Amino acid sequence: MKTALLSSLAPLLSRDMRVDDAAEILTAAAAAPPRADEDLLLDRFFPDMSGETRGKILGVRDTLRREIQSAVLQRSATGARLQALRAEMERSGLDGFIVPLNDEFHGEAAPAAAERLKWLTGFTGSAGFAIVLKETAAIFVDGRYTLQVRGEVDTSLFTPRHVTEEPIGAWLKAMMKPGDTLGVDPWLHTENAMNALKQLAASLEVTLKPVAENPIDRVWENRPPLPLALVQPHGETFAGESSASKRERIAARLGQSNVDATVHTLPDVVAWLLNIRGADLPCTPFALGFAILHRDASVDLFMEARKFAPGLHEHLGNRVRIHPPSEFEATLTSLKGRTVQIDPTVTSQFIVDRLIEGGAVIVRAEDPCLLPKATKNAVEVEGMRRAHIRDGAAMVNFLHWLYETAASGDIDELAAEARLRAFRESGEHFRDLSFNTISGAGPNGAIVHYRATPATNRKLEPGTLYLVDSGAQYLDGTTDITRTVAIGTPSPEMRARFTLVLKGHIALARAVFPKGTTGSQLDTLARAPLWAAGLDFDHGTGHGVGSYLSVHEGPQRISKMPSPVALQPGMILSNEPGYYKTDAYGIRIENLVVVTEITPPAGAERVVYGFETLTFAPIDRTLVEPGLMSDTEIAWLNGYHATVREKISPLVEGKAQRWLEQATAPL
Amino acid sequence: MKTALLSSLAPLLSRDMRVDDAAEILTAAAAAPPRADEDLLLDRFFPDMSGETRGKILGVRDTLRREIQSAVLQRSATGARLQALRAEMERSGLDGFIVPLNDEFHGEAAPAAAERLKWLTGFTGSAGFAIVLKETAAIFVDGRYTLQVRGEVDTSLFTPRHVTEEPIGAWLKAMMKPGDTLGVDPWLHTENAMNALKQLAASLEVTLKPVAENPIDRVWENRPPLPLALVQPHGETFAGESSASKRERIAARLGQSNVDATVHTLPDVVAWLLNIRGADLPCTPFALGFAILHRDASVDLFMEARKFAPGLHEHLGNRVRIHPPSEFEATLTSLKGRTVQIDPTVTSQFIVDRLIEGGAVIVRAEDPCLLPKATKNAVEVEGMRRAHIRDGAAMVNFLHWLYETAASGDIDELAAEARLRAFRESGEHFRDLSFNTISGAGPNGAIVHYRATPATNRKLEPGTLYLVDSGAQYLDGTTDITRTVAIGTPSPEMRARFTLVLKGHIALARAVFPKGTTGSQLDTLARAPLWAAGLDFDHGTGHGVGSYLSVHEGPQRISKMPSPVALQPGMILSNEPGYYKTDAYGIRIENLVVVTEITPPAGAERVVYGFETLTFAPIDRTLVEPGLMSDTEIAWLNGYHATVREKISPLVEGKAQRWLEQATAPL
Repeated sequence: MKTALLSSLAPLLSRDMRVDDAAEILTAAAAAPPRADEDLLLDRFFPDMSGETRGKILGVRDTLRREIQSAVLQRSATGARLQALRAEMERSGLDGFIVPLNDEFHGEAAPAAAERLKWLTGFTGSAGFAIVLKETAAIFVDGRYTLQVRGEVDTSLFTPRHVTEEPIGAWLKAMMKPGDTLGVDPWLHTENAMNALKQLAASLEVTLKPVAENPIDRVWENRPPLPLALVQPHGETFAGESSASKRERIAARLGQSNVDATVHTLPDVVAWLLNIRGADLPCTPFALGFAILHRDASVDLFMEARKFAPGLHEHLGNRVRIHPPSEFEATLTSLKGRTVQIDPTVTSQFIVDRLIEGGAVIVRAEDPCLLPKATKNAVEVEGMRRAHIRDGAAMVNFLHWLYETAASGDIDELAAEARLRAFRESGEHFRDLSFNTISGAGPNGAIVHYRATPATNRKLEPGTLYLVDSGAQYLDGTTDITRTVAIGTPSPEMRARFTLVLKGHIALARAVFPKGTTGSQLDTLARAPLWAAGLDFDHGTGHGVGSYLSVHEGPQRISKMPSPVALQPGMILSNEPGYYKTDAYGIRIENLVVVTEITPPAGAERVVYGFETLTFAPIDRTLVEPGLMSDTEIAWLNGYHATVREKISPLVEGKAQRWLEQATAPL
Repeated sequence: MKTALLSSLAPLLSRDMRVDDAAEILTAAAAAPPRADEDLLLDRFFPDMSGETRGKILGVRDTLRREIQSAVLQRSATGARLQALRAEMERSGLDGFIVPLNDEFHGEAAPAAAERLKWLTGFTGSAGFAIVLKETAAIFVDGRYTLQVRGEVDTSLFTPRHVTEEPIGAWLKAMMKPGDTLGVDPWLHTENAMNALKQLAASLEVTLKPVAENPIDRVWENRPPLPLALVQPHGETFAGESSASKRERIAARLGQSNVDATVHTLPDVVAWLLNIRGADLPCTPFALGFAILHRDASVDLFMEARKFAPGLHEHLGNRVRIHPPSEFEATLTSLKGRTVQIDPTVTSQFIVDRLIEGGAVIVRAEDPCLLPKATKNAVEVEGMRRAHIRDGAAMVNFLHWLYETAASGDIDELAAEARLRAFRESGEHFRDLSFNTISGAGPNGAIVHYRATPATNRKLEPGTLYLVDSGAQYLDGTTDITRTVAIGTPSPEMRARFTLVLKGHIALARAVFPKGTTGSQLDTLARAPLWAAGLDFDHGTGHGVGSYLSVHEGPQRISKMPSPVALQPGMILSNEPGYYKTDAYGIRIENLVVVTEITPPAGAERVVYGFETLTFAPIDRTLVEPGLMSDTEIAWLNGYHATVREKISPLVEGKAQRWLEQATAPL
């Protein structure tokens, strides 16, 4: 930390706090992303503080946060960083080293301290990895990022390669010699991923060498600390089931399989199992840590206890033993003779190695919490309904604002995104966005994973479409909604294609299907109207959504890709067909739905399920071409809009309310 | 052979033929199923024979055929046979032995000589296996056969077990001790199946012992010989591509993968690759044999050359080397250092063991002929069209006959089945049925794999439904059609459910889908109307169909089960949704379709495919409830019926033609 900041800190502290300690806490707090209630952390470490002092300390934290972010991503430094890494590899006797994007928890996001790929290469995409050899290096990305990688990464340092079309094996074969040593950090590869690497290395006669410490960490100057954010109880009012009950349920299943313990590293699983929520990562209320669940339903939790909010110890109870993370390794090696279940698709090779080393018997199976977590209970579903009504009000206020102002052509993507966030932030229980808003005007709407930046920012111009995909984390639920809005008068093609997407959306929303049906079996319903016109979209139709947890969760999904997971009542999914015309416009209509058992029709012989739509916001009627819709489809849209009006109208005022009347009028 | 038969044979033979040789030939010919052109075989072995002598010799063959069939299936003998097998196991030091249903070719059917499970247990279903231990034995069948097995098998000898609900492992664990020896015939288990058995045996600490000779074969008195049926050229007029061209195509692919040779044992693959057809098995024109395709596009074929029709050697050419089957094993062990590809899902463990023993390098992949075989060329598709028009004429004559006679209530399932066969047999190029006709009246129609027998035979009674699923093998194509016919006046429920099945059939027939779509993705289209009513059916929606080959062929299918195989133009599939009300009635509407690239709609961005319906026969209009159909669906049915009338009317006469007019009138 800079000396100036340190000296500004000293006079703010109470007598019994050292400046170094305060600096350490504030830096770790700054390594966590901002969150609505994040200032509560200060009350724990800097109690009894006056308003003015509090403000100054928060200011120090915010300065540190900006410094951390700008220090990780320094594209001008990547040459020097690569050189430092190569020197360290040389010292460790490595001819190569693999740099994945993920951290040791293998979740969707990682804290700044684990952003090794970004630090090394400057790449900011959500998937990819680099391999650094003595003389050369390459960065492997998928089709979504082949353009972006060339804009972000110095290609004289890292050759960009398309991971499926130019796979790793061919490149390694050309670049490495038999007998060479390729380093891997066993914390950063799951057992399944490591097995694939082992096979590849064997075929190339290259030695795969697990490193004891990641060489990047050794040379990363001012590497940010692990994030320090409050871990809070997630009460039964929201969770609907006590942690003790969840643990008993899962432990009973372990007992049936003669398994003594399971290791859980997925942050959303740990949060769900223990009914706790943290703020270590952006857009997801996770607290990073490891948990071992035992057959007797007790848990060993490896997490920094100083992150715990007051009352959390009591909330966890005495069947959850708290350990510092440093004790995790020794605990793994102490499980001699015990049968320990791990999920090889998410568990780090490091963990498996320590279990084997300690003499545990390893059983491999899907994490037993995934299905129970995905299958929401009545309280969680009711919370999702309530959160969606508040979210719907924010969306209606936003769409009304857009209606009032966008015709001027003066609104741009970033301004719209900020306005929408502001409407959401005022809602009860709001904590964060659930993902970075996709605010895409005109051709930017056709980029499926678009994120507006000052460089790409476009005006919302008349005659174009505006696509906004956004969501929030509320204490009682997680939302995710996409609306496509005509700015000015849309073209007949835009209306026709929007209507095809809408027909697919409606077909899925109205689907009735027997128990045992998977999301893959329903995917075609959302595409068939587009297919008939020779069109399609290249992303999944629906992903699972957590309950004040990750906005993307498995194991269920609605997708062209085969899925063995049968949909079950309580599972929440998105319904989001789309259509994208490159360089022109994008269309997506996304609501969240919950699987429900429906009243069987007369004469029914099977238990049948359907979807209840949770999301309530108008679908742009000016984009609907009624001539392309069946009576049933028009009835669905009118019925949906009537429900939107009924539920949201009481929550919005004046002109917004009047606009809502029009926007939800029957076709 | 019985002495009486032998002595009747002697005076019929020419001077240079010994009675024993003639008896051997006739017995082997009798071991093949009857086929339209089977008498041609006699011209090869008994040339220059007068009509009367010929008739007598054919009579001997037919007597022998009946004897073989009745000798294999002797339920009263199963106790003695089990005892003999146990004695032989004792001599060989086996504590147990597995008896599968399949033969070493792992196809859908097996010749009498390989019907070991039927011989031992009396079970006649299409899937199952037995395990014989010293003191006990069990027969494992799936849900289709749990009732049938109790009717056919002496359960005091063989305990029936449901193969998925009471799996083999639990039973073996209870019945065998660690250290026990379980015998397996490595010819009768694929490599994949054997790997599963090896894992199971290891977990039970049981020794899996491959036997050199199947112990059943050692104790099977009068075991039938392998079938002797003519192998004939399948000319380019029907095949559309020369064998040389096919071999070059596949060999080029082998070369790209650096594979030196592939082993082919699937009878339909051998037939397709070499453009030959035989008659060794019922309902499929296969000649049993093995083939090794080399990278230079030459083939080693292991097949009895005495089965070859005149001209077959010339047809095969000098790039196909003919060997007696006895040389197959030595050839496998001679491939030292060669890279040999096998398909572990269909190749016997015996073959893999010999390759390994001989020092070949083994590559495992799907049989490279499967996709090319499934993707019919223009000549094959045109042949299928022509065969289906003849088959449609037979169906129209049959349905008209049914219309004229069934109302009396005097027609039964077996009579109807025989009548339909007779109509088909008169068609050009007819060779055989393509499977055993399912002729199900009333409640028997609800049994998906029903086969009428004198014991189950029912009358077609007024007020019931009659379901007939049948097909034929013509030189130019293979057919498979199901029609459900109202006998008298159907109930409103029958009409409503028939209409739901029809809606699903139409949705699939009209489907438009982008290149890359799998059959699994389309399955739901055929089920959605039933699902909406809380109904479903428990079988696949569509299977692949060969071109004068097997009526069931992969790798494509339309099914709830995930399939990775994208549909490609030229693939032929069935479209056969159904509905079954147990103990009441069954409904199924089945046409064959061929995947075709369709003219893209205006504005299309993707290559889109659809189905051309190949089958032409009226769908019973008295079972259609127009009120449940959309205008589009009614238009499809009327259009289909107009095409049926146009194509079939010229081929039928008088009253049948007039009936066809009514049966295909617009709704």
